[in-house]
Amino acid sequence: MRVIIIGASAAGLKAACRLRRLRSDAKIIVIEKGEYISYAACGLPYYLSGDINTFDDLRKTPYDLIKDPDYFKAVKDVDVRINTEALKINREDKIILCRSSNDGSEFELEYDNLVIAAGASPVIPDIEGITLPGVNTFTRAEEAIELRKGCESRQIGKVAVIGAGYIGIELTEAFLSLWGIDVTLIEAKTTILPEILDCEMGQAVEKMLQSEGVEIHTGSCCESIIKEGDSLTVKIGKENLLNGFDRVIICTGVRPNSALTTESGIMTGEKGGIIVDEYMRTNDENIYAAGDCVEVKHILTDSTVNIPLGSLANRMGRAVGENIAGVKRKFKPVAGSSIIKAFDWNIGCTGLNINKAIESEYKPGEVWGFFEDKAHYYPEPLPIMIKLIFDLETRKVLGVQAVGEGDIIRRIDSLAALILNSAEIDDIIDFEPAYAPPYGGPIDPLHYLAYTAESVIAERTAILHPESIKSFKNDGAVFLDVRSEGEIETNPLPDNITDKYSIPLHELRSRIKELPVGKDYIVLCQKGMRSYEAALVLKESGINNTAFIGGGMLFANIYKD
Amino acid sequence: MRVIIIGASAAGLKAACRLRRLRSDAKIIVIEKGEYISYAACGLPYYLSGDINTFDDLRKTPYDLIKDPDYFKAVKDVDVRINTEALKINREDKIILCRSSNDGSEFELEYDNLVIAAGASPVIPDIEGITLPGVNTFTRAEEAIELRKGCESRQIGKVAVIGAGYIGIELTEAFLSLWGIDVTLIEAKTTILPEILDCEMGQAVEKMLQSEGVEIHTGSCCESIIKEGDSLTVKIGKENLLNGFDRVIICTGVRPNSALTTESGIMTGEKGGIIVDEYMRTNDENIYAAGDCVEVKHILTDSTVNIPLGSLANRMGRAVGENIAGVKRKFKPVAGSSIIKAFDWNIGCTGLNINKAIESEYKPGEVWGFFEDKAHYYPEPLPIMIKLIFDLETRKVLGVQAVGEGDIIRRIDSLAALILNSAEIDDIIDFEPAYAPPYGGPIDPLHYLAYTAESVIAERTAILHPESIKSFKNDGAVFLDVRSEGEIETNPLPDNITDKYSIPLHELRSRIKELPVGKDYIVLCQKGMRSYEAALVLKESGINNTAFIGGGMLFANIYKD
Repeated sequence: MRVIIIGASAAGLKAACRLRRLRSDAKIIVIEKGEYISYAACGLPYYLSGDINTFDDLRKTPYDLIKDPDYFKAVKDVDVRINTEALKINREDKIILCRSSNDGSEFELEYDNLVIAAGASPVIPDIEGITLPGVNTFTRAEEAIELRKGCESRQIGKVAVIGAGYIGIELTEAFLSLWGIDVTLIEAKTTILPEILDCEMGQAVEKMLQSEGVEIHTGSCCESIIKEGDSLTVKIGKENLLNGFDRVIICTGVRPNSALTTESGIMTGEKGGIIVDEYMRTNDENIYAAGDCVEVKHILTDSTVNIPLGSLANRMGRAVGENIAGVKRKFKPVAGSSIIKAFDWNIGCTGLNINKAIESEYKPGEVWGFFEDKAHYYPEPLPIMIKLIFDLETRKVLGVQAVGEGDIIRRIDSLAALILNSAEIDDIIDFEPAYAPPYGGPIDPLHYLAYTAESVIAERTAILHPESIKSFKNDGAVFLDVRSEGEIETNPLPDNITDKYSIPLHELRSRIKELPVGKDYIVLCQKGMRSYEAALVLKESGINNTAFIGGGMLFANIYKD
Repeated sequence: MRVIIIGASAAGLKAACRLRRLRSDAKIIVIEKGEYISYAACGLPYYLSGDINTFDDLRKTPYDLIKDPDYFKAVKDVDVRINTEALKINREDKIILCRSSNDGSEFELEYDNLVIAAGASPVIPDIEGITLPGVNTFTRAEEAIELRKGCESRQIGKVAVIGAGYIGIELTEAFLSLWGIDVTLIEAKTTILPEILDCEMGQAVEKMLQSEGVEIHTGSCCESIIKEGDSLTVKIGKENLLNGFDRVIICTGVRPNSALTTESGIMTGEKGGIIVDEYMRTNDENIYAAGDCVEVKHILTDSTVNIPLGSLANRMGRAVGENIAGVKRKFKPVAGSSIIKAFDWNIGCTGLNINKAIESEYKPGEVWGFFEDKAHYYPEPLPIMIKLIFDLETRKVLGVQAVGEGDIIRRIDSLAALILNSAEIDDIIDFEPAYAPPYGGPIDPLHYLAYTAESVIAERTAILHPESIKSFKNDGAVFLDVRSEGEIETNPLPDNITDKYSIPLHELRSRIKELPVGKDYIVLCQKGMRSYEAALVLKESGINNTAFIGGGMLFANIYKD
């Protein structure tokens, strides 16, 4: 058995190693266009920031061995050939035409099975000035090494980051936190992390980044980059000029590397990724694909997704290795879990966001909550703001988004496990997380959100976006604040809310007669729990149309200014 | 509708509040024997330690209101009567005979539905000296308040804690960490947290506690307590006398309060808890039960379990409230998730431990791993030691236990979600946790463990307990250390391993001829991953009988001395 693998990064090498474990007789060759193999690309921002000392740290095993071709030969009996580009796939004869970048020579390799793990490349916008010196992408080792040098030598004082996705935000922190470099973050869409977070959650992240000193321009398309003297100017929108940048980093996403495959008739999908079946096989039965260059099924939609993430690449590669070895291993649909650390915040999600839920023809409902990640009496609790998305008709859990300093990943992972098992709201209610006061209250945030979702589904009350407080107008509805005096003093309502009632929840039952009858009500408290309860108390007393502000004043605070 | 609830703690009050939300017309009376209601009993150890300032902090809402009967009347329209004991249930006439401890008067209450949420009481061993002054249990507010005073006034210098369950360990930390009180922890079973952790995991916790300065006696039954002058002496075993204690705290577990119910013909189970159906209804259709006094189904066994935990009590109470209101709400079987923080360690589990798995007639396999909770190149990773238990025949996931400073709860919760969905090993392989370097490597510890479990099931290699290194003897098997020289130097093998081969993994393929043929092999590395791989490399070269030491030298280190 002769297996050729194109691409010596996570997916390709994992396929190679897994196959070797199962088939000692296979001849396995991995070809790689570049010089560096098997380095932790996800770690590049932390190398840039200085959290990681040398680039080699990113390509070492935990046991301090550099993962170069010699390592793979010795440990895995896998033949990795660097500086070797695949030029053409001849599917009929099962031959790949390759070129060595060492001497420019071309040669052929035969295969019984081929694995395409060619990764993804940065999307480079077609704008004026994109090729100027100082304008870089940030996906390759060489770029990171060069930028780190610029930081260390203090040649970089001000940077524009174009694109507020994961990489853009990680770079923003890297430049600012350790090196003290001024960062201007420019995003064409209207909010931060637009592919992942809904508008109001992205806005929360935006406010946090601003408080850390990042200059942010959202809804701002970069039109051109101009060289002015020693520095670069970025033109956003029609006439807004931002100037004085030493570097402009393009972080406008990546696109699957699939040119080679489409030329040879391998089918690709809407997102440009290679289409594979559940065994990671392409439309050619001898050719598999894995990693950033493929599209996989999403558990909640009929469509496929391209998720360039090292964790998925590893798991896909492993499945490919098993399938080539003859073990039937399905790669199951994904939920799209992701997480990012930015300054002191954790930002995570899994499942669909609201736009994707609507696109997929769900009828999504949304609930929000403001929580703390320890029992309320336990010292030093950290805040978490969570949003749960579910289908109003089927009660299916569609997604969760969480941001804040508190323990986010725990909730993302649990929800991912539930979503991968086609959970409904009731499965969250039955979920049994571990509990002790240092880790949370006896009722988990996910439980609260599920309870709220149930009430929304049953139309016991309605819930409003936390940022709706900004634009609140008394269109005939009564605004009721059920917080205590002290709470109101510390976190006053924004000025736009002039006409309001204020009755603390614990006095609401006895003072309910003070409230006007025959009106709709919008209730607010500190975190959302009491106003939810107040809405239900109002309902008991015959007021049918109530809504409360999800996450309360502490969540809404983010949007106040 | 008239509903009486016995017990004003988590389950009872939750049932009351949930019922109120759904049925504004119900008359709801909660009777409580004691004076304090609705306080966070799980928080008592943190009140003792001083982490929480005043006892009132444990019975306040997050909004600073004391949860007393007035609070429940005002906010929830629930009538809570403290100092009121239920003496007798007359099921025929649906009447409860009560007694007020204020004036000793007796009176009757009628019900349409009754909820028993009477909680649990400490198990008090029947030994000499158990009633001596200074010998306390630790489940009631009054006890915690009195002990805290003793700590603050420095009247307590040395304490014996009898029972190394959750409470015993939390108290141990509370006494030692803030107050600097000497603690001797005495456990009748052979290891720490014996109901929850398997022997080797309990031993790991034991070693940690010892390193914090706790004196520990396991396998030591407390035979009697003797007053000698101003201090107490504890006799363990036949003649071992431990002396000089100012206090002896009995933490030998709790037992469901079900005397009242058994007298009235309500059925209880093997563990002494009230038996309920999936709607939390007892064998009397008008009587429900919830909280620490009931037994519920376990998802992995045919038997029931009694789990006295605030989180479950809340969820059970809520289900009862819904069912009485006429919403059909099942309380699903539990997985038994739990977590405890002890000094810098997190200690958690879900599912069955090995003994319970065997009792339940599974054929359990076990795998171990030593991991870090960040990508290996990311700064300040914290260790996690995890054990996964699964069924060798059905591949069903049976349980997980994890200990260490790293992020434990995330794994416990994910596994709980999977176990509650009847997961097999393959569901862990398909699990999609969120990934970024600050949170872990691209291959999650749970994935590694699932891969190892697969290899064990397929008999590609075998895995040995990490502590097996202590007792290793070269009974014809070759011991192979595949670590690097530097690693061996920092963490040398214990002295009992004299006859061994040492070849770093990356040289194993080229030097395999140095190894004797026709032998069985036991392989060791630093964390378990390389030795697992080495075992598979040996297999490739024709050596069929291999085993590796789970979790490697870093896990085994714990047991060295």
